[in-house]
Parts: sequence; C-alpha cells; structure tokens
Amino acid sequence: MTILLDAMGGDNAPDEAIKGAVKAAKEIKSDIILVGNEEIINSKVKEFYNKSKIEEVCSNIKIKHTTEEIVMEDIPTVAIKNKKDSSMVVGFKMLKEGEGDVFISAGNSGALLTGATLLVGRIKGIDRPAIAPLLPAYKKSFMLIDAGANTNCKPLNLVQFAQMASIYLKTTLGVENPKIGLLNIGTEETKGNDLVKETYNLLNQNSKEYGVNFVGNVEGRDCFSGEIDAVVTDGFTGNVFLKTVEGLGKLVKRNLTESLKRNLWTMICSLPCLPAIKRFSKTMDYKEYGGALFLGVKKPVVKAHGSSDEYLFYFTIKQAEKFVESGAVEKMKKEFEKN
Amino acid sequence: MTILLDAMGGDNAPDEAIKGAVKAAKEIKSDIILVGNEEIINSKVKEFYNKSKIEEVCSNIKIKHTTEEIVMEDIPTVAIKNKKDSSMVVGFKMLKEGEGDVFISAGNSGALLTGATLLVGRIKGIDRPAIAPLLPAYKKSFMLIDAGANTNCKPLNLVQFAQMASIYLKTTLGVENPKIGLLNIGTEETKGNDLVKETYNLLNQNSKEYGVNFVGNVEGRDCFSGEIDAVVTDGFTGNVFLKTVEGLGKLVKRNLTESLKRNLWTMICSLPCLPAIKRFSKTMDYKEYGGALFLGVKKPVVKAHGSSDEYLFYFTIKQAEKFVESGAVEKMKKEFEKN
Repeated sequence: MTILLDAMGGDNAPDEAIKGAVKAAKEIKSDIILVGNEEIINSKVKEFYNKSKIEEVCSNIKIKHTTEEIVMEDIPTVAIKNKKDSSMVVGFKMLKEGEGDVFISAGNSGALLTGATLLVGRIKGIDRPAIAPLLPAYKKSFMLIDAGANTNCKPLNLVQFAQMASIYLKTTLGVENPKIGLLNIGTEETKGNDLVKETYNLLNQNSKEYGVNFVGNVEGRDCFSGEIDAVVTDGFTGNVFLKTVEGLGKLVKRNLTESLKRNLWTMICSLPCLPAIKRFSKTMDYKEYGGALFLGVKKPVVKAHGSSDEYLFYFTIKQAEKFVESGAVEKMKKEFEKN
Repeated sequence: MTILLDAMGGDNAPDEAIKGAVKAAKEIKSDIILVGNEEIINSKVKEFYNKSKIEEVCSNIKIKHTTEEIVMEDIPTVAIKNKKDSSMVVGFKMLKEGEGDVFISAGNSGALLTGATLLVGRIKGIDRPAIAPLLPAYKKSFMLIDAGANTNCKPLNLVQFAQMASIYLKTTLGVENPKIGLLNIGTEETKGNDLVKETYNLLNQNSKEYGVNFVGNVEGRDCFSGEIDAVVTDGFTGNVFLKTVEGLGKLVKRNLTESLKRNLWTMICSLPCLPAIKRFSKTMDYKEYGGALFLGVKKPVVKAHGSSDEYLFYFTIKQAEKFVESGAVEKMKKEFEKN
C-alpha cells in the first residue's frame, strides 16, 4: 500500500508532516510518499535528522516533487483549477491514477473537498460526498456526518450520509449494527425543520431498504452518551456542532488549567492528580480521534486536522492505512451501484 | 414588584420551587406569588419548615391557588387552550393583568412559548419572540439567541434577535456597546447557508440603523473566547448548539470524576485539588448563568431550567428581579414602536 501525504498542507507544514511520517513509517507496512517541495523537505530532513535525503531516514518514504502550494486564503475552486503543480492537486492526481491508495492532507478544507469531488470523483449513486470526523463520547467515539461539506442539503443527501456511515462503521471500525441517529432539537418525530422531518420519515419508513439501523432523532446532549455510533446532519448544522465542541474543549482546558494554577498553593495541590487530569484531557481531546474522512469519493481521502502536530500526523497516517485495508470505499461503491 | 413563580413546573416541582422562593424572598425586596395547588404547597411547607402556611415562613410569599398542571408530555397549544386553571395559564393571565411583573416557570418550554405569545402577546414590531439563555465563556458569559423558539427563521427575524439582544445587554447587564455576532461556519461573508448570508448583508449594511454593534460572522469555537456578547442564530441551530454545550458539559463532568475516582490512589491524590476542581466545574456549568429570557413578549417571562433545584430557582428569581428593574422590556417596546 502507498500512502500519499500532502507535506505542504496545514499550519505546521512541512515540519510536523515530515516528523509524523517518519514516526509512522517505522511502524507501518505501507510506503509513504511526501507530496511537496523536495528542496524544502530535504533541508528539513537535514535539520531534524542530519541526513541529506528522506530515504536515508526511512527507506519506505519517498518524495514527489511539486512547486506550488494551496494556502488557507486560496479560493478552493480557483486554486484547484490554477495551481496545477500544488501538492494537493498533484496528490489527488496520483491517487486517481493509482500511484497511491489514500491521500491525506491538513490543508485548506474547501480546496480538499473541491479536489476530491472534481479530481477523484464521486461514487456512482452518491449525490454529495460528506466530511465525517469521529468525536469523543462516553467511553467511545461517534461519527458526525456531514461536518461541513454541504451547506444546503436535501433529505436524500442525509439518507446517503446515514448509509455511508453505516458501511464505514461496519467495515472499518467493526461496529456490528451501528446505531444511526438524526440530529434534531427533540426526540419526537414531529420536531425539527422541514429537512429533518422529511429525512426522519424516509429513514424511519425505509431503514431496512437503506441498510441503516436508524434509532430516530437525537439531541445534541445525547450524542456524547456513548449510545449512538453516528449522528447524521446537514453540513451547516454539523459544522456548527463540530466547532462548538472544539470551542468548548478549549474553554475546558483553559478554565481547568487556570483553576489548578491559580496560585502556588493550588499548583502544589494539583501535582498528585496531574496523571488523572491528563487522562481526563485525553478523553476530551477530539484530536485523539484522528482525521476526518471524506466519504462518498471514489478513493480514500482523509483530512488531517489543520493544526496537526507530529503525533497527529502519525496517528492520522495509521488511521488512513486501516481505512484502506478495510476496503470500505470498495464496499461503498458496490452498495451504491446496486441501487 | 411582584414575582410570579410557577410552583408546579419543572422536574423538581413543587419542592425545589418552594425552597428556592423561600431562600430568595429573604434577600429580595419583591413579593413572590407561588402559582400552584395551595394544598400541596402548604403540605410541603409543613414538611420543610413545620409551619402550616407559607406566609408564616416568609411574609412576602403568597399563594395563588390553581388546580391543574401542564406536564412535559402535554402538546403546547392544546394544553394552553384547555388547561385553563393550570399554574402556567393562570400565571400568564396574572402577568397580563398586572397582578405580577414577571413570570418564571421551569415547566414545558413549548407551552411556555405558546403561552407567552398567545396570552401575553408580542411586542409591536417584533415578528418572533426568541429564547435567550446566557452561556459560559472565558471569564464571562454570552447570550445565545434564538435557542429554540423558532425552528424556521427569516433574515429579518435574526436581525430583530440581534436588536433585542443589544437592548437587553445594554439595559440589564450594563454592557456598553455589546458585540453581536452571527453564528456561521466561517468568518468570511461568503460563507453559510442562504439565511445566514442574507442576514449578514442586512446587519452589515444597516448596523447603525438597527442600533447593533455587528462584529460579523462567528464560528462555534469563537463563541467561548469571551470576546462576543451575543450570538445570533435561528432556533434550530441555536437549540442544537445549546444541547451540544449541555451534553459536552455532562461528558466533561463524567470523565473528570471517573479519572479522579479511578482507584483509591487517584482518589487520595485528588483530595488536595478538589477546591480547584469545584471552581472549574462552576465556570463550566451553564446552570450558573441562570434562566433563559423570552425576549420579544410584552412582559418579562423567564424560563428556569427544567431540572432546577433550590439554588437555581433562587438564582433565577434574583435574575428575574434584575430583569424587571432594568426596564428592558419597556425599552424594547419603545425601540421597536419607533420603526
């Protein structure tokens, strides 16, 4: 297997992307191709590992040289069209042509979505690909789909999100009969806006046909109980949800740290329970749950968090390998082509 | 001033409502009228305070006897229409007729909204009243409006929410030039669904005319930074937001407690920093920020949290007194009648 990693994407690229790839390469069977500027990458290799080429650090890492970069300020469609030698566009083309099995990038999300749809293409039968990150719940995680790819959705899009989540959770994470809920403002079927009400009816009446174990409406507060495997919503609501979780997570960290470090006395008192606090912080950190998958495109694409560090790149690479090994995308193709 | 409290509403009514009223009555200048079943209330008074009547416990608390209750399972419009002698309907009628200055209830939210709109009435110029709770942010709180009253909204509704938030924050909380943001999935003006884009244009172009200090789009993660005073959104997204905060808050508490109580050793280690942990939990508890206001109705109405305990009823009563004293509703009437 060959993993394509956008070495130039994300807030900490290429430094942390290189370090994460080196850390992962030692543990995985796959090859990694760093897609990015060879000169810049090798100068970092010199700095970090005192070797002149990345291959000398890990024999299973190679570089595909590119000259351009897509940055956060770029307009997605324009960048994908014009920056033909950017690490992202080249990465997608390699993925399409079979020079790699999965493409990972921590770069501009909009460009990544545009590239995935335009350069790699949608799975036949899926109208809209979706972004699907895993988020922390009680003693497990749950999938949020769509977390921001589609601002305006139709009921059928949400049904397809439910189907894709089911297939992924079964094949990749081994969840036996994944429980799929619909994000709403109440559990009763009469609740919600028109989109949610229509989606509820579709999923409720045809759950067998869709192959979805639909458990009904779920409220924001129920998502974290550990009883739901995936929460389906439109990309606007899902993105608000995702960023609310992120914002509140930061507030938790900030307030907890300040409470513990209030003065010398509280600092000394907090020392014995630091391991417990760290364990707690880990359960709350959505970054611990890896990258977000782009479900609905013909090949595996993974969005690493924009502020990924060495550990997170490492973790996302390992997650991507598992994603490919599970054959989830092929199974999705088969399922949707049946219809 | 007279505060009307629905003694029969909420998960812990009437017990905690009575206790909260007694606690508050000792500190405030206002009278409190407990609206509910006199017999039940006085039997509780006997149990808690060993007195035969509530007036013997606090001379500034009275009872308005009612025989019915609106429960959580009731359909709002049906209940408001049919249960004419319920504590909620009677409370609203007293408010309307000037027998009280504010009505507080921890009961069925939908019925409360229906009652507020049908029995008390909208302020002229406001198309849709909204629910506006305060939520925790870094070293302060922020207002979320609308948190669930209006599932489907038009741009003008959101503009009015922004105006109401501004007036309330200025008059009641003394915020000088409240910063109002629009909840969106990106800060750029091109982001979001149609509703948000149109609202952005209205607020951006006419902020002076509306009397709103509009600071643009805000993402979920920015709401908690302490830099925004109010976040405007439709009732569907707002309710998802509110319940996500609630759910994540519970997860934080659960994970932190379990991390600290993992075994005897971690329990002993955590003892010295328990005060810091408690202080932290307090900053994260949205209940600490009191009830949610119903903005846009002709008289002050406050929704206490459904699971309110003695402390929370006490806190919400004090908050309601401040709300009335500020004259925010009268100022809102004047502002909107100008247009």
